[in-house]
Amino acid sequence: MTGEMRAIIKPTAGPGAAMTRVPIPGVGPRDVLVKVKATAICGTDIHIYNWDPWSQSRIHPPRVFGHEFCGEVVEVGPQVRSTAPGDFVSAETHITCGVCFHCRTGKGHICQNVEIIGVDRDGCFAEYIAVPEENIWKVAPDVPIEIAAIHDPLGNAVHTVFSADVAANTVAIIGVGPIGLCAIPISRMAGATRVFVTDVNEYRLDLARKLGADVVVNSRREDPVKVIMDATGGMGVDVVLEMSGHPDGIRQGLAALRKGGQMSLLGLPSRPVEIDLADGVIFKGAILKGISGREMFATWYRVAALLRAGLDVSPVITHKFPLDDFEKAMELARSGNCGKIVLYP
Amino acid sequence: MTGEMRAIIKPTAGPGAAMTRVPIPGVGPRDVLVKVKATAICGTDIHIYNWDPWSQSRIHPPRVFGHEFCGEVVEVGPQVRSTAPGDFVSAETHITCGVCFHCRTGKGHICQNVEIIGVDRDGCFAEYIAVPEENIWKVAPDVPIEIAAIHDPLGNAVHTVFSADVAANTVAIIGVGPIGLCAIPISRMAGATRVFVTDVNEYRLDLARKLGADVVVNSRREDPVKVIMDATGGMGVDVVLEMSGHPDGIRQGLAALRKGGQMSLLGLPSRPVEIDLADGVIFKGAILKGISGREMFATWYRVAALLRAGLDVSPVITHKFPLDDFEKAMELARSGNCGKIVLYP
Amino acid sequence: MTGEMRAIIKPTAGPGAAMTRVPIPGVGPRDVLVKVKATAICGTDIHIYNWDPWSQSRIHPPRVFGHEFCGEVVEVGPQVRSTAPGDFVSAETHITCGVCFHCRTGKGHICQNVEIIGVDRDGCFAEYIAVPEENIWKVAPDVPIEIAAIHDPLGNAVHTVFSADVAANTVAIIGVGPIGLCAIPISRMAGATRVFVTDVNEYRLDLARKLGADVVVNSRREDPVKVIMDATGGMGVDVVLEMSGHPDGIRQGLAALRKGGQMSLLGLPSRPVEIDLADGVIFKGAILKGISGREMFATWYRVAALLRAGLDVSPVITHKFPLDDFEKAMELARSGNCGKIVLYP
Amino acid sequence: MTGEMRAIIKPTAGPGAAMTRVPIPGVGPRDVLVKVKATAICGTDIHIYNWDPWSQSRIHPPRVFGHEFCGEVVEVGPQVRSTAPGDFVSAETHITCGVCFHCRTGKGHICQNVEIIGVDRDGCFAEYIAVPEENIWKVAPDVPIEIAAIHDPLGNAVHTVFSADVAANTVAIIGVGPIGLCAIPISRMAGATRVFVTDVNEYRLDLARKLGADVVVNSRREDPVKVIMDATGGMGVDVVLEMSGHPDGIRQGLAALRKGGQMSLLGLPSRPVEIDLADGVIFKGAILKGISGREMFATWYRVAALLRAGLDVSPVITHKFPLDDFEKAMELARSGNCGKIVLYP
Repeated sequence: MTGEMRAIIKPTAGPGAAMTRVPIPGVGPRDVLVKVKATAICGTDIHIYNWDPWSQSRIHPPRVFGHEFCGEVVEVGPQVRSTAPGDFVSAETHITCGVCFHCRTGKGHICQNVEIIGVDRDGCFAEYIAVPEENIWKVAPDVPIEIAAIHDPLGNAVHTVFSADVAANTVAIIGVGPIGLCAIPISRMAGATRVFVTDVNEYRLDLARKLGADVVVNSRREDPVKVIMDATGGMGVDVVLEMSGHPDGIRQGLAALRKGGQMSLLGLPSRPVEIDLADGVIFKGAILKGISGREMFATWYRVAALLRAGLDVSPVITHKFPLDDFEKAMELARSGNCGKIVLYP
Repeated sequence: MTGEMRAIIKPTAGPGAAMTRVPIPGVGPRDVLVKVKATAICGTDIHIYNWDPWSQSRIHPPRVFGHEFCGEVVEVGPQVRSTAPGDFVSAETHITCGVCFHCRTGKGHICQNVEIIGVDRDGCFAEYIAVPEENIWKVAPDVPIEIAAIHDPLGNAVHTVFSADVAANTVAIIGVGPIGLCAIPISRMAGATRVFVTDVNEYRLDLARKLGADVVVNSRREDPVKVIMDATGGMGVDVVLEMSGHPDGIRQGLAALRKGGQMSLLGLPSRPVEIDLADGVIFKGAILKGISGREMFATWYRVAALLRAGLDVSPVITHKFPLDDFEKAMELARSGNCGKIVLYP
Repeated sequence: MTGEMRAIIKPTAGPGAAMTRVPIPGVGPRDVLVKVKATAICGTDIHIYNWDPWSQSRIHPPRVFGHEFCGEVVEVGPQVRSTAPGDFVSAETHITCGVCFHCRTGKGHICQNVEIIGVDRDGCFAEYIAVPEENIWKVAPDVPIEIAAIHDPLGNAVHTVFSADVAANTVAIIGVGPIGLCAIPISRMAGATRVFVTDVNEYRLDLARKLGADVVVNSRREDPVKVIMDATGGMGVDVVLEMSGHPDGIRQGLAALRKGGQMSLLGLPSRPVEIDLADGVIFKGAILKGISGREMFATWYRVAALLRAGLDVSPVITHKFPLDDFEKAMELARSGNCGKIVLYP
Repeated sequence: MTGEMRAIIKPTAGPGAAMTRVPIPGVGPRDVLVKVKATAICGTDIHIYNWDPWSQSRIHPPRVFGHEFCGEVVEVGPQVRSTAPGDFVSAETHITCGVCFHCRTGKGHICQNVEIIGVDRDGCFAEYIAVPEENIWKVAPDVPIEIAAIHDPLGNAVHTVFSADVAANTVAIIGVGPIGLCAIPISRMAGATRVFVTDVNEYRLDLARKLGADVVVNSRREDPVKVIMDATGGMGVDVVLEMSGHPDGIRQGLAALRKGGQMSLLGLPSRPVEIDLADGVIFKGAILKGISGREMFATWYRVAALLRAGLDVSPVITHKFPLDDFEKAMELARSGNCGKIVLYP
């Protein structure tokens, strides 16, 4: 397909973004062209918009950004076998090399040479996007497009929840941005017997209640460690899912973790964090796991199975805009008074 | 058995220790009295001797200290079934409550109510020690008494090595005090294909060479991260065993760990440590495990199996003294120019 | 406590049982005497009643049988610390030696020297039973006595379900006696996305529907392998829980298992079974696990957590009798037209 | 490359094989053409030669057979990135679909749509072979060509050994064909403290001794279960690696396995086998694993790491022939009085 399309780009090195027209991306022999039906704003997109130090070192403008999306396949390269025009799809954001140790041992999510859609190559804040066949994920036709559009963060949540032994255990979710919010019903479906949630944002704590959290703590007003200790007879929680990346959240998670407990860390701290390894990890015999991306594609199969079985994360999606109102959407995203924001190109 | 015995005690709150005479300990219905044949000095004993802040908060003088030992059973309580006078034994140092969640789920090594021999109750720097039957470990008669006397730290090393997937993998041991030194031949027997060692103490690095380390780095003179990265084609090491407790060692371990690698932490930092969780753990998809004590008694069975199969940690034992020369032994231990020091009561 | 009590005993080597009066059991220094509030009939009790070949080789009459029960602690030995008169309790049926390899490595459920209540020593079809302190399990006061009385088979079900990766997976339960029935809502709470059930007993298949099975197959009328294959797109089911012990059930389970799937076997075949290891296990890269008893006490903590979180197995209990009507109850149990039968002494 | 080459083919449906001339295989865009330096005879090749029932149902003549080989890359398709002419390589025999559930979750070794080299497509008993880039495995230049040629069965052995917890454990290998023989030094390197071997072929039992087995049992002359029980104090062996596929071997393995032990099954029984699941698996709480192929490519990385660390399986290779002497080699292979036979095209 040739021609032009509308897209949100980072035009030059500096804050902000611009709606502009760019060529529809070409399709290599193993690529798939998708007409974007819905896309969503991730924290990474806010970093790029704000042009923070990480963005300055990583992004090479002009760049179409955005990486969460779903759409319809409209064209495939000549060697593509597993998808065809008309398919309803989302896509894994990490484009892996396929030849490094990790890729060849079933751990593509930590590929040594990964490229990320909307970061290292053009993304999905646009009418069309081209992605390699390997990254395409077919979505069941009865999944709403808003849910299909957020398969990437939903997958982060599933990867994190399933990294720990959640069944018949208590779980504390530290930080309920959209991924933390998704983790609430996922933990429940994975067998968590009690879900604690902590955050400092009342808007999101309200969403956490809607999504089924048992105990919701605003850690500005109450000490979450004390709440969890009191509720667990002084033992602490079996599993901590750290999704804030905030030093206080991480320290509270370690303090609230029971002996022999498991803590999975997804939230990215912006700088080194001082933690009490002796009491928080070593004497406890605790296990900490770093969580990156989504397992390719074990996580995706789990997402599909959970949705089929009734997983409902729709309350996470709080706002919808046409892509043309990108600036308004981005302003809202930066305020934090929202869950996930979906855009329609 | 009644009467008096010689023992090294912490007589009052303050630095130092004293050789004195105390009553031979009584034997409860489920207890075992052991005549100590050999005992060894642990870093914990140095803390108690020095009367550091931890000791001040934990030790209640007068207290016989010392917890690494072997000996011969000379008396058993009326309900004891599994050992008898004449048995050659060592003992697990952690006396567990038996009724907490951890004790009842096979994780006694993280018992909520643990008491430690030589810390919370009288220890083994003495002619006799009484321990509960549950803590007794029978040692094969052909094991030298010096090796039997260090089953506790040997067990720490086995617990740490076996907490990670070592077989067919590369291993870096950060810090080679006696436990780190033991970990070298244990890693080898557990299938490590390459063992890197780092420390700042040349005496101990020499011992590491004797014990079979492949690559020995004095991290005051060379950057251990660079050495490991160069030797692993830039990937990093599969497994890190952190046995220094030093902030630099911990940070170097995280930096040298490959993506998807495992790091087990046994060394106890004396205060919170600043670490780079984003690059060191999260993006890597790394797994960190806190290691405390020895698994009761899976670790002990492994120790026995490894010794039977030829494990030789004898070079770790560098000095031997009569118990009466305790002050001289302690001075040497504090200098660091030694491996493990064994004492004979 | 002294005196006599009513009890159901196997009086002599041969079929049948007798209600009689026997002395209230004595209490050793570490034992606990429980006044039985409710007890339940297990398949093992039917074997003993029928005096089958296994019973003939194992049971030494006269013997009080029965092992599923709950009650109130009425007396404790002088060394008992963790329970006291008035406690509402159930008990683990396996009395372990505490000193074998398995007991000392957290695997008491496969103790080399196990004694079973109601089999190797007197059981709970009586007004009182004495059990070692270690075997006592305190039950929350709000748990109905009928549920407390079946903690043993409920624990079998929990042990089996938690031996496999059930969360986000499909599960087939082969055989829905009371344990298989319990496994239905447990699998659901542990995150199973779809639960298939097969049996040949319509009464129990009806109960399976009530307990929430998604697909219920009478394998006399339909081929369960075909049903499962059709429902899983030809892949097979992720997890099989074999609870029938029947050769056909075992073979169907293997045939319906997907490649890389897990099958846990709890049902005991009465003789060797011919199975297709090449296609059923080896080419599939399948994992089979033998399940015996309950993990002591990890399973029990899970039972408690699941009940606290709302697990409802009450439909499994279909009939209730006074203990005096034991013969009537046993006749019903032998017919199979029942779920679990509870008796009140 | 065009032209003809010599090759051993199954010319028509029936026993035997023929040396003939066939076209050098063409190279697709992602294929690699390898000049075969050495190839080896597998049991599968004997089945094909003999034209057994399995072969009759699976093989479509004319077919070049053989699948164990190494060689030099001489040509690559235009999209090949990770290998180039001159590379010294072996290859994974299983050509996977890349799009099924198993392939997309890191389990390509149980691909739903696998094609096997030398079975479903032309193999390596020839001067050249074409394989997909994904299947190519680069071998270190210092590995002898005979060892490189047997990476496929060596990988089977590594996959099997690493499927169980071998470190600090005892291991019984049932059946010492070439794969079982390789498993001896691999088990040792993986930390096995004692290796038992059973077979009925004295030639191979002698090889087992040379490869370092501790206890070697001719199960025609001694009862291997009794030998193992006696040597393990009546407990049984920690790990069984079943590599015979013989019903007696399988039953002996189950009988010799300790409670809580692990048994990995690689040997393929030619028909269903009657086994005692109750005593052999269920009461034991044993774990059985079906082992198929090699993990792609975790197993291959382990093979490389073990060879680098000094793994020596050279005694497994007992005979070498030019490919032209194929009939003589096949006759010897069928006799069983050999280890692995290597052929040079």
